[in-house]
Amino acid sequence: MDNARLAPYAAAHRERITATLLDWLRIPSISAHPDRAPDVRASADFTAALLADAGLEHVELIETPGAPAVYGDWLRAGDGAPTVVVYGHHDVQPVDPIDLWRTGPFEPEIRDGQCYARGAIDDKGQVLYEIEAVRGLLELDRSLPVNLKFLIEGEEEVGSPHFEALLWAERERLACDLIVVSDTGMLAPDLPSTCVAMRGLVGFTLSVRTARGDLHSGMWGGAVPNAAQVAAQLAAALHDGDGRVTVPGFYDDVRPLSEAEAASLAAIPFDAAAWMDTAGVSALVGEAGRTSLERVGSRPTAEIVGITGGYGGAGIKTIVPATADLKLAFRLVPDQKPELIADAIEAWAHAAAPEGASVIVTREGAVAPALTPSDHPAVGALCRVLERVWGRPPLLTREGGSGPEEALGRVLGVPLLFLGVGLPDDRIHAPNERMVMDQFWRGLIAAGELWHELAALGPLP
Amino acid sequence: MDNARLAPYAAAHRERITATLLDWLRIPSISAHPDRAPDVRASADFTAALLADAGLEHVELIETPGAPAVYGDWLRAGDGAPTVVVYGHHDVQPVDPIDLWRTGPFEPEIRDGQCYARGAIDDKGQVLYEIEAVRGLLELDRSLPVNLKFLIEGEEEVGSPHFEALLWAERERLACDLIVVSDTGMLAPDLPSTCVAMRGLVGFTLSVRTARGDLHSGMWGGAVPNAAQVAAQLAAALHDGDGRVTVPGFYDDVRPLSEAEAASLAAIPFDAAAWMDTAGVSALVGEAGRTSLERVGSRPTAEIVGITGGYGGAGIKTIVPATADLKLAFRLVPDQKPELIADAIEAWAHAAAPEGASVIVTREGAVAPALTPSDHPAVGALCRVLERVWGRPPLLTREGGSGPEEALGRVLGVPLLFLGVGLPDDRIHAPNERMVMDQFWRGLIAAGELWHELAALGPLP
Repeated sequence: MDNARLAPYAAAHRERITATLLDWLRIPSISAHPDRAPDVRASADFTAALLADAGLEHVELIETPGAPAVYGDWLRAGDGAPTVVVYGHHDVQPVDPIDLWRTGPFEPEIRDGQCYARGAIDDKGQVLYEIEAVRGLLELDRSLPVNLKFLIEGEEEVGSPHFEALLWAERERLACDLIVVSDTGMLAPDLPSTCVAMRGLVGFTLSVRTARGDLHSGMWGGAVPNAAQVAAQLAAALHDGDGRVTVPGFYDDVRPLSEAEAASLAAIPFDAAAWMDTAGVSALVGEAGRTSLERVGSRPTAEIVGITGGYGGAGIKTIVPATADLKLAFRLVPDQKPELIADAIEAWAHAAAPEGASVIVTREGAVAPALTPSDHPAVGALCRVLERVWGRPPLLTREGGSGPEEALGRVLGVPLLFLGVGLPDDRIHAPNERMVMDQFWRGLIAAGELWHELAALGPLP
Repeated sequence: MDNARLAPYAAAHRERITATLLDWLRIPSISAHPDRAPDVRASADFTAALLADAGLEHVELIETPGAPAVYGDWLRAGDGAPTVVVYGHHDVQPVDPIDLWRTGPFEPEIRDGQCYARGAIDDKGQVLYEIEAVRGLLELDRSLPVNLKFLIEGEEEVGSPHFEALLWAERERLACDLIVVSDTGMLAPDLPSTCVAMRGLVGFTLSVRTARGDLHSGMWGGAVPNAAQVAAQLAAALHDGDGRVTVPGFYDDVRPLSEAEAASLAAIPFDAAAWMDTAGVSALVGEAGRTSLERVGSRPTAEIVGITGGYGGAGIKTIVPATADLKLAFRLVPDQKPELIADAIEAWAHAAAPEGASVIVTREGAVAPALTPSDHPAVGALCRVLERVWGRPPLLTREGGSGPEEALGRVLGVPLLFLGVGLPDDRIHAPNERMVMDQFWRGLIAAGELWHELAALGPLP
């Protein structure tokens, strides 16, 4: 790695780059909170300045009905060189429960070689090493071996509600041969990997109402429907005793793994004790007859991501709750179709609601599952880079998560490549999110190497 | 009613009494919120001033490890006259969900003959008419026909955690022949009733934990336990398909209704449509094979009073929640014993928790069910008063709710009498709590009549 192209640049600019990272992480760009809209915009402006400072051109904010995305390109590599869209996002998750953070989510701090802040790894850190790799290569060579188009979104953490429309509107400007997504992870620092499939996602809020208002539990309890109980019953009814999702038709379109995929999945080492330790859990559970890696990679799932009804304060309040909200997220795999699954879930929710309860289903975004052909030459190029920078050949994985990648691939009509340095214990979306700084610096070097490796391939298929 | 003793007093003092009521209701004496402790104390001071102004003597705050109770007495009726403890409380319920209040919970307002505020009927209004009845009688006669001891608690809405200790400590000072509870209701203004039994209560918080922190649902979802799901499963498992509580042994000690009680319960008119309209529900549900009045009066029940786990904000957060709280309230009937039931519930919760989930059970107070012998002469006296003031003989009911009345009766060793003017649609514990002012004025008159009616009985058994 010491003879990697960008190693001297990374060493020489260590302090400035670190300071830039911390400055960006101080911006609370929480896209889920409407009152944080000015902060999301400040983060977009910060991103635009980073791109311009790095030497990218045509930098501008792309407005949406929600938060702005940021665009910048460098297109001087010539027609013969590949053109790549680099995707990431500058918005971050909410921070609750706030009291579990050791230091403030927007007071970034580097401790023991790890950077702690909301957005450190998801996704500001991963966007920053991509930008700094460009800046380093331009400093070194005054040019890049490929044409690059950065597209850094501002609504990824709320399900990218306006992203597909943006892609359609900007389709010509975004024309490319390949998309590099900088928002994923690897199995471990000594177990590099890249993702060749991502689960899709459909989300729902089920709003249950059983009465005009909360009722006194002494006066009415036992004789009237209870919204918190109905929400709990719906949540409990979502899985059967074998951990399978009970929504009729849910598994109909799941494509079985090919033999090659099954073999690769089986080759990933799995240490149940270490996995449980990383997750901080005391048991592994899930769909009967499936391994944990199958459960998070190749199988669709349903999660109760939130349930809220009645009194949540100290002690007891003697009420029969009139309303409750149940928030559900379903992870989808090829070839499940978000729209059909959403219809099935909505039908299930209405059928499962007992007498005396009304259930309003709100769809909270949908992302189809994505697949990258693992024999595409760009996958090979990325694997060579990962092997050089991390010291061993990467495994091919399926990522449990999903973002707007599916729309990117579908609208732009090109394959997706995943360069990501996140680790399973980075606590994304949770308190004390962190990025391991050594992974960041390797990411910067790998990003630079990748552009040269891709250019060497010649025209992409 | 116009020839009732206190009718001229009520008419003459209408404005002052109303203003006093509104002043008291402006004090946000929420005992469940530690930061409201100064307000609960201000409410205690207000109560003490009311008692002193009315002519009661030995007025003082009785301190507890929590909020203070208020005491005041008038003991000049002589040894031959009955001595009565009047019980009520000056603390109020929390106000959430605050956005459903039409006017501020502590900005009391009288609209269409109804007083809207938190605590209007539960229980400041009901305490005030008792105090004003004393003031009126003392103005009229310079004396009372009975010895009275007011005991106005400050922690009723948090389960009276220090009340029984207070009763034991103050047992001599509180010695009496009878307790009159001023914290209940009647079936309707044209259907007066009094309660001869109250359900008991045991409350619990079940704190579920499945991981150190929330986990990303894409990365871990489907393979690790989910605290929100576990809480929902526990909540759903609490009842069987017949609406019966599944906790082993729960029904073992339930005493069947006597024939007389069953007949009285059956005589209470029940209009299902009106009942549903009052509750604001579209169905009546509950234990199979029981009427609605049995379900709320003579049968024990379990209610999910709150469930909170994971994300509760706008949209979706893609997490596997690590913690969830389930709040349960069980209503008990004679002869269920709170301690045995609590043990059974705790054992059930631990047995029902699935692998990978820890459940911590916190007991949130316990009140045993209470019964008053319906052939006690004081019950007859009260019934005569209710008939005079409301124009028809009252029905005997069982109150679904419960307070510290059981401890009062048990520690002081005397029967309980329930004079209460609350109505089923007063929305106690809910937004837009109200008191019908006409009920308040009748309550004032009835309270004065009751002391004369009781004195006429001679020595109580």
